[in-house]
Order: sequence, then C-alpha cells, then structure tokens
Amino acid sequence: MGSPSDKPVMQEAAKVLEDFGVPYEFIISSAHRNPENTALYGKEASGKGIKVLICGAGMAAHLAGTLAAYSVLPVIGVPLAGSSLLGLDALLSTVQMPSGVPVATVAVGGAKNAAYLAIEILALADKGLEEKLLAFRMKMKQDIGKSNVELNKKE
Amino acid sequence: MGSPSDKPVMQEAAKVLEDFGVPYEFIISSAHRNPENTALYGKEASGKGIKVLICGAGMAAHLAGTLAAYSVLPVIGVPLAGSSLLGLDALLSTVQMPSGVPVATVAVGGAKNAAYLAIEILALADKGLEEKLLAFRMKMKQDIGKSNVELNKKE
Amino acid sequence: MGSPSDKPVMQEAAKVLEDFGVPYEFIISSAHRNPENTALYGKEASGKGIKVLICGAGMAAHLAGTLAAYSVLPVIGVPLAGSSLLGLDALLSTVQMPSGVPVATVAVGGAKNAAYLAIEILALADKGLEEKLLAFRMKMKQDIGKSNVELNKKE
Amino acid sequence: MGSPSDKPVMQEAAKVLEDFGVPYEFIISSAHRNPENTALYGKEASGKGIKVLICGAGMAAHLAGTLAAYSVLPVIGVPLAGSSLLGLDALLSTVQMPSGVPVATVAVGGAKNAAYLAIEILALADKGLEEKLLAFRMKMKQDIGKSNVELNKKE
Amino acid sequence: MGSPSDKPVMQEAAKVLEDFGVPYEFIISSAHRNPENTALYGKEASGKGIKVLICGAGMAAHLAGTLAAYSVLPVIGVPLAGSSLLGLDALLSTVQMPSGVPVATVAVGGAKNAAYLAIEILALADKGLEEKLLAFRMKMKQDIGKSNVELNKKE
Amino acid sequence: MGSPSDKPVMQEAAKVLEDFGVPYEFIISSAHRNPENTALYGKEASGKGIKVLICGAGMAAHLAGTLAAYSVLPVIGVPLAGSSLLGLDALLSTVQMPSGVPVATVAVGGAKNAAYLAIEILALADKGLEEKLLAFRMKMKQDIGKSNVELNKKE
Amino acid sequence: MGSPSDKPVMQEAAKVLEDFGVPYEFIISSAHRNPENTALYGKEASGKGIKVLICGAGMAAHLAGTLAAYSVLPVIGVPLAGSSLLGLDALLSTVQMPSGVPVATVAVGGAKNAAYLAIEILALADKGLEEKLLAFRMKMKQDIGKSNVELNKKE
Amino acid sequence: MGSPSDKPVMQEAAKVLEDFGVPYEFIISSAHRNPENTALYGKEASGKGIKVLICGAGMAAHLAGTLAAYSVLPVIGVPLAGSSLLGLDALLSTVQMPSGVPVATVAVGGAKNAAYLAIEILALADKGLEEKLLAFRMKMKQDIGKSNVELNKKE
Repeated sequence: MGSPSDKPVMQEAAKVLEDFGVPYEFIISSAHRNPENTALYGKEASGKGIKVLICGAGMAAHLAGTLAAYSVLPVIGVPLAGSSLLGLDALLSTVQMPSGVPVATVAVGGAKNAAYLAIEILALADKGLEEKLLAFRMKMKQDIGKSNVELNKKE
Repeated sequence: MGSPSDKPVMQEAAKVLEDFGVPYEFIISSAHRNPENTALYGKEASGKGIKVLICGAGMAAHLAGTLAAYSVLPVIGVPLAGSSLLGLDALLSTVQMPSGVPVATVAVGGAKNAAYLAIEILALADKGLEEKLLAFRMKMKQDIGKSNVELNKKE
Repeated sequence: MGSPSDKPVMQEAAKVLEDFGVPYEFIISSAHRNPENTALYGKEASGKGIKVLICGAGMAAHLAGTLAAYSVLPVIGVPLAGSSLLGLDALLSTVQMPSGVPVATVAVGGAKNAAYLAIEILALADKGLEEKLLAFRMKMKQDIGKSNVELNKKE
Repeated sequence: MGSPSDKPVMQEAAKVLEDFGVPYEFIISSAHRNPENTALYGKEASGKGIKVLICGAGMAAHLAGTLAAYSVLPVIGVPLAGSSLLGLDALLSTVQMPSGVPVATVAVGGAKNAAYLAIEILALADKGLEEKLLAFRMKMKQDIGKSNVELNKKE
Repeated sequence: MGSPSDKPVMQEAAKVLEDFGVPYEFIISSAHRNPENTALYGKEASGKGIKVLICGAGMAAHLAGTLAAYSVLPVIGVPLAGSSLLGLDALLSTVQMPSGVPVATVAVGGAKNAAYLAIEILALADKGLEEKLLAFRMKMKQDIGKSNVELNKKE
Repeated sequence: MGSPSDKPVMQEAAKVLEDFGVPYEFIISSAHRNPENTALYGKEASGKGIKVLICGAGMAAHLAGTLAAYSVLPVIGVPLAGSSLLGLDALLSTVQMPSGVPVATVAVGGAKNAAYLAIEILALADKGLEEKLLAFRMKMKQDIGKSNVELNKKE
Repeated sequence: MGSPSDKPVMQEAAKVLEDFGVPYEFIISSAHRNPENTALYGKEASGKGIKVLICGAGMAAHLAGTLAAYSVLPVIGVPLAGSSLLGLDALLSTVQMPSGVPVATVAVGGAKNAAYLAIEILALADKGLEEKLLAFRMKMKQDIGKSNVELNKKE
Repeated sequence: MGSPSDKPVMQEAAKVLEDFGVPYEFIISSAHRNPENTALYGKEASGKGIKVLICGAGMAAHLAGTLAAYSVLPVIGVPLAGSSLLGLDALLSTVQMPSGVPVATVAVGGAKNAAYLAIEILALADKGLEEKLLAFRMKMKQDIGKSNVELNKKE
C-alpha cells in the first residue's frame, strides 16, 4: 500500500489471505515518495517467490502501475477513496493502463476482492486452495439462505 | 464476448494470445440474451481445462460478473465503449463487483491488456511463457529507443 | 434485494405495497453470490403468479439485469448508493441494458417509486388499485396545500 | 417524443411495437414548447384506452416526468443523447424522479427497450403477447448460436 | 420550491430579498406532485404583477423548466443537492433546457445568488435597487479588507 | 465572446436578437487574454446604456464571471463545448459562482436561449417585446402541430 | 485565497513555506468580490519582488486564472472542495485555462503541494532550497521505512 | 512524452519553446514501458542542466508523476485525451498527486500552456524571456483588437 493511512482498508485483504492460509508480505511503499524501493520491490518480487502483487493506493494511484512496469507478475490494483473525488481518481489512475502493462483492477475500496482474486490465481496451481474457494462460495450461498430465514422471522 | 459487434476490439486479445502461443476459445455469449448458456459456460470452464476467462462487454456489462459468479477461475473483464456514455457505464458495471466475486478489470477497450494479464497469470506455472513476456517487455523498451532515434531524425 | 444491507432502503418499497394492499414476497438473492437461485427465481416467477419483479442492488448492480434475462415479466431496478461512487455505478449498471432485455430503472435509492411503478403496472388490470393511485395523487396535492398553509403561518 | 429530431431513434420503438402487433400512436409533444397539450395528453391518455406511455427526450428531458405527473399509467422514459453532454443530462433528468411519480427509465437511446418493456407490461394481460416475447427471447438465443458458428467459420 | 424539505436553502433567497426590500411570495409547488397548480401559477404570474420567478428543486428538477414553459417571465433555477448524486442531477435537469424556453441557472444550492440575480433584473427599472446593489458590492469589498486585517492580526 | 472560434455558436444569439429587433453589440473580449479591456467593458456597460450582458466562453470559462464581478447588470453565461471535456468544464466554471456575484447560466452551447432570456428580461419593461415573445411561443406550439401532421403523412 | 473560509486548507501551504524558510504574503482577494484589487495585485506582484503566486479557491474558481491574466509570474492554482460538487467544479475551473495563460494546477485541496511546487520553482535559483527539498524527499523515504517497521511490530 | 502517438499534440509545446528561443530536448519515455530509463531521466535531469520537465501522457498518465518522484525540478504534466474517456482519466492521474510530490498540471491537451508555464518559470531568472512573455501577452491583446475589427467588417 502507498501510505500508512491505507492500512484500515488494505488489512481486509490481509485478513482474507490469512483465512485461506495464504502467506503474504504486508508493506508500505509509494510510487512517489520512495520510488527506488518500489521499483526494486517490483524487480525482485518474482525472484523472492512472490506470485501476485496487490497494491492499494488513492488519488493519482500509480503504485499498481509502477509495480506492473517492473514485473511480469500479475498485479492487482485496489483504488482507494482517499480524496474528495470519491476514489474516481484512483480508479481511473489504476485501471486505464496502456497496452502491454496491465493492472487487474478491482472495485474502489475492494481490498477483499483483491485477495479473493489473488487466491483464484494461486488456486490454478493449488487444488487445496481451489477447494477452499469452492467452500467459501458455498458458504456465501448458505449465508443468503440464512439471511432470508431471518428476514422472514423479523418481518 | 457479449455480442458480435464486440469482435473488432476483442480479437486484439485473440491476436496477442496467438502471438504468445496460448490456445484459446473465442465465443459470443451474453449475460442477458442467452443467460443459461453463459451460466453453463462458467460452470464447465474449469472442467474443460480452461484456466482464465476474458470477457468483453459494453453498456451494463454483466458478462464478466456472471462468469465470475459461476466459476472460481480468474475472470478478466474488458469494458467496451459501446454506448453514448463512452464506456464509463461498462467500466463501473465491470469493476464495482461485490465482495467475494472479483473481476480483474482492465482499461475501457483494453482487450490487449486482458490477454497480457491472462498470460501473466498462466506464466506463473509456465517458465516458457514468462520468458516470452520478458522478451516482449524488452522489445517494448527497444521500440521506444527506436522511436526516439526516428523522432530526432525527423525533427 | 442483493444483500441484507439493502434492507433499510428496500423495505420502503414493501411499506408502499402494504399501504396499497398489494401482496409481495421480500427476499434476498444475489446475482453474484447465489446465481443459480437467482436464475431459478427469475425462471419460476411468472409460474408462481408473480406479476412484477423489483430488484434493489448497489455497486455493479446486476440483480435486475439477471432477473430480466430469465423472465419476460417487467423488472424494476432500484440502484442503491452502496459504494463510495454515490450510486452512479449502480445506476449505470442497472439502466444501460442491451437491446431486448429491458430493466425499468428508477432513481438511485428510489425504492418507493419502484413500488409505485409496480402498482401503476398492476393497476392496468385492477380498477381498485387505479383508484387508490388516484387517491394517493390527490393526497399529495392536498399535502402541498397544507405545507403552504403551514409555511405562511411560520414565516 | 419531444422534438422532430428525436424521430430516428424513437421510430425504433415504433418498429418493435409493429413487429409485435401492438397498436400505438406516434406523436411529438414537448414539456416545454407546448406544455398545455402535453399535460392534456397525459390527463386523457387513460380515457382514450392508452395503457403505457413511452417518452423520448434529450437534454433536460422533462417529457416523461410531465406525463407521469398527469397520469397514473406506467410511463417509460428514453433519455436521448441530443446534447454535447452525451445524454447524461437526459438520463439524470429522466430517472431521478421524486417519490410518488415514477418514470421507468431505460438506457440512453434505448428506444427499442422502451418498446420491449411496454410489451412486457401489456403481456401481463395478453397471453399471445407473452408467447411472442418468449419466442423473441428464443430467437435471440438462436442468433447467438448462429453468430458463433459464423465466427468459427471466419476465423 | 418543490418540496418543504427545500426550505432551509430557499429561505436564504427570501432573506436576501427582504434585505433589499423586495416583496416576494414564498410557496411550495411541485412540477410532479401538483402539476396543475404549478402550471396555473406560471400562467398567472405575470398578470399578478410578478416580475421574476425563482425555483428551487432537487433531483430531476423540473420546476423551473415547467414555470418557464408556462410563462415568458425570466425564470431563475436553483438546483438543490437533495439526492445521493450531489445535485449534479438537479443542475443538468435545470440548465440543459431546449431552445426557446430558457432557465437562468445558478450554482447548486445557490439560493442567495438567485435572489441577487432577481434583484439585478429588477434594478434595470429601479434606480434605488441598483444603488443598493452597488452598496452591497462595496460592502463585499470592504469585508475582504477587514478579513485581511483580521488575518494578519491572527497570524 | 471569449475567442473568434466561439463565433459560429454565439451568432445564433445575435440572430435571435435581430429577429426580435433588439439592438446589440457583438464583440470578442477575453477574461484571460485582454483582461483590462474586459474589466473596463464590464464597468462601463451600464453607463453606455447596455441592459444585459451575454457571455459565451469555453474551457475554464471565466468571461461571464469577470463581467459579473465588474457590473451589477444581469450577466448571462453560455458555456461552450470547446474542449475534449464536452463543455462540462465550461458549465461548471460558469454556473458555480460564489454568493453575491451571480451568472445566469444556460445550457452548454445554448446561445439562442441566452438571447431569449435576455429578451425576457428586457420585456419586463417593454410591452412590445413581451408580445413578440408570446407570439414566438405560440409559433413554437403551431410548429409542433405541423410536425405532427407531417409525421402522420410520412408514416 | 478567495475567501476567509479557505484558510484552514491554505494555511497548510503557509506552514510548508515557513518550514522551508520561504517568505510569503498570506491574503484574501477574490476574483469576483474585489476584482479591482485582485487585478492590481496581479499587475504589481512582479514589481514587489514576488516570484510565484499560489491561489486557492473553490466552486467556479477564477482566482488563479485572474492572476495569471494580469501577470507573467508562474501561478499555482489549488482547487478547493467548497461546494456540493466535491471540488470537481474548482478543478476544471482552474486547470482548463485557454492557450497563452497557464495555471499550474495541483490536486483538489492540495495546498501543501502548491507550496512544494513553488519551492521547486524557487530552488532553481537557490541551491540552499534545493538541498532542503532533497533532504525533505529523503525524510519522506525514511518515514516510509519507519512506518514499515511499526507496521510489522503492530501486526 | 509517453508514446509516439502523443507527438502531434506535444510538438505544439516544442513549437512554443522554439518561438521563445528556449532550448529543449524532445523525447519519448514511458513510465510503464521503459520505467528504468524514465527513472534515470528524472534522476539525471538536474545534473544535465535541465530546469523544467514537461510530460505529456494519456490514460493512466503516470509519466509526470514518475519524473516528479525522481527529481525536485518543477514537473509540468499535460493530460492527453488518448482514450475513450476524453482525457478525464489522464487529468485525474496527473493532477491528483499525493502530498510532497507535486505535478504542475495544465489543461487536457494543453501542450502549448505547458510551454508557456515553463517559460514563465525560466523567466524568473531571465529578463529577456520575461520581456518576450510580456510582448507575447501584448500581441494576444492586439490580436483580439484585430479580431473585433474583422468581426465588425464581416457582420
């Protein structure tokens, strides 16, 4: 993530990864304030065994794009609503990447979905993870069933 | 893709996949006009050996979201500028997915990047693909070098 | 509605239907989290005697579009302001449907109007309902009259 | 429709109604330029046997809202992209109706869908129309099948 | 104004008119909920000696446009931020009027400026009002002078 | 108007004024490129017998605001679509004036309506102009009647 | 700045200038409410030894544009989020300047960055300032390093 | 500039610099496609005697931000309208920079103004340039005078 202030949203992604037993590294690095380190992180990520990069940033959110420029790993961008412009600035800065250097963008503030997307990617080579995903999807369905039961009680 | 009219943009993705030697299936299926087939496609994709789904759709672009709902494969969404609203409608309909069902969204009209992103995902388990990606990135750098040479000639 | 969190807004629609004596079913079903049930609901709605479907959803609001895809009943969509983007995402995701599969969209958060629209549709075949609508419209006029009286008192 | 210039788009709705054998009246009436006639049209519509009103208008599109104010018939609004603002002005002017006076809004330029929505409403009391709608939906599915066959030939 | 809830903003206009000694009528009338009265008000305004109409409304703000349609008096529209869309809906619904029926639109929530604009119009035929306007402008300049003095003290 | 390139749109206003027999001065003056002259024009306008100022400008359209700052005459602003941003920039730059210095804003590109609004203002003190306005409104109604006759012929 | 209410944001710029030891003048002057003084300020700025002008204003933010029109000094504009439109109005009013009269625009509410930009400009002719800037950049990098240490402790 | 396709717009900046006799370097370098070179360019710019950096880029325009991150020289960003989103994406990606790393942003497509702004900055230490700027401003005023003469002839 680009700034300590992004932590409350981005740790939702960390929580999901933990729930699925996926190891991760949780750091702050900015495309603008410590660009050398960020570039280095991108270059070295694959060699360190990292498979997917999740980047949360607000405003002119260049973090995901910068990592995508320095790595051929899949990079997932989470636009954050950190300015008066509601995150529309971060969304467009993250998703409108030029040809050749993609960023897989999720919803504004969608840190959880960044984690689920990372897990879907990792699950391509990890049968256990795929099963956890299928179980999670099943649980979502059951939760809706329970919500409906509760809804009818309350009404 | 959701409609035959999406073909001119979406075949740019097909072209990239061919250049990288990645086999693919190129079909039309709509979240709204043949929803049963689209749902079935999502459910059966993993079993058929498909690894990544790329969906291009315009307006209230639900195609990527529908496939994401029926599959735990990574789904890449390409918002298309098929209406008077310039693709902003398709972008928001594709990227703003609810928690638990992510769509990896690329730029409006970003079919090529959808393919590059798919290749990055597949390259996690395919050293040859990773090398092709690194060569492609290198070529992009060299092309800029050549452009600069040409620019100075012309000036 | 697509999520339990949509209840506070969507029950305003339920309230209006009750005031007009129109029977209804109030359930949670998501286009993304339990898509099979949602599809089934659309397919079976007409057979169960349902005349109009009202769908409230936020963000990439696909619920109304999904039901419209599985049914030829009139589907009314209520875009909900459930994200940082103020409901603009839900509005465009709901209203910008492709040709052949319409969704009758009301204002962002316009759950009441969804109910009034449903009643207008049902009133085409129900003289009693039409009279209730005319009485309701008359009451709105009288309320404005009363507001004006009060306004002049207070000033 | 509010202006003769809206004809090219709005006659797509007329064409759909003709295809389904639904009688209709096709007129120009403006909320701003001949407001008395427009008001009168709204008031008398139900008495003349009209069941659904379809209104296409651009810019500060008040036509649908005006008819909705004078009638309890279902009113379908088609925002038209008639200004430099791409129809976003017409969309918001049509859909953001206050509580009590709904307009069933379709996509910007969505004249065809306005007709399909009207037919869905009329089909609630007309088994023959419902069957035509189901046949139309079936044809859409078959067309996608054919498009796929053609797509594979061409490739 | 279109609704009792618009009172807190619109009475700022009333306050300005009072400060300038301009008589006014302060009423609620809706383009959608009591359209006949609103139309009548527009038609009769000139005959009653009214010179300028100020209309405040939110969402699909048709009030100013409706009065402009029934009167050739200058109509000033105040878009109100009464929905989740921040008043952008009201602004576009108010300002984007078709040719022949203008609405003089001020800022979102700009009730005071509606009053100042009305006074500027009335001042064309009222030397006393013009002098009050010039004095008001002079006072604004002096207030900025005082603010600067205070600013330097505080610093 | 702020630039010679604004002429094609702004002379539509001139044409309307001529049709109504209203004398006018048609000049180019920019808030940014010749600010002293623009300021002077604003200061002297009232003394020269000018009653209403119409200003057309694009992009960061400050012309109307500048004249409003230097004059207490009614100032009508016409936002022009002269940039890639479709005139949304000019609309917001023109309409969002601070309290005390109003600009009567019309639609993007609405030069004709600026002239009609000016005529409505002048007609408050000119019975002849008011009659021309009423005749013009009547003609608009008749034109719609004729359009309907033609529409039915063609169909 | 254009109004006393802009002080809380704009004094962040003052604070940065103080931290860098850059002398400044902090005043209120409005493009609309005291335009003559604002024009005079622009004309005299260079002669008084001022090197850079920083202007914060909201809504139809013309302050920076006005100073840019009266001076060839670099003018930095800070759009302020002072209206319901989130500062998008101020951003477009500030940045979309016509050719020949530029305004160096920073982020909505970006008063600090206006100061840093001014310092970068002044540092071109002031080695000491450049060193302070480099030290400040270094400190930003170290702060991120510290944040990461703290992040790992807390986790 | 970020891509050869940006040349037609960006060479307008080059043309202005030439007219003012300001030496410049005109190159293509991308924040995403050759990030190492772009970073290096930023780091070395000051040492090579460069005073101001002008960066034109479209879509998720990170070029200006990247150079600003690697240099404390003033960086001017020109958002380019290179996508379906009209340059709004590039504008927000360029202007919404985080605190500490400013980009001086000009209008969408405002390459000329980027050059004028650079010249204003350079003119702080170059009396000759300042005089050229004043002469250029004078010429703009005279051009408007001539346009008015021509306008009156033609009318």
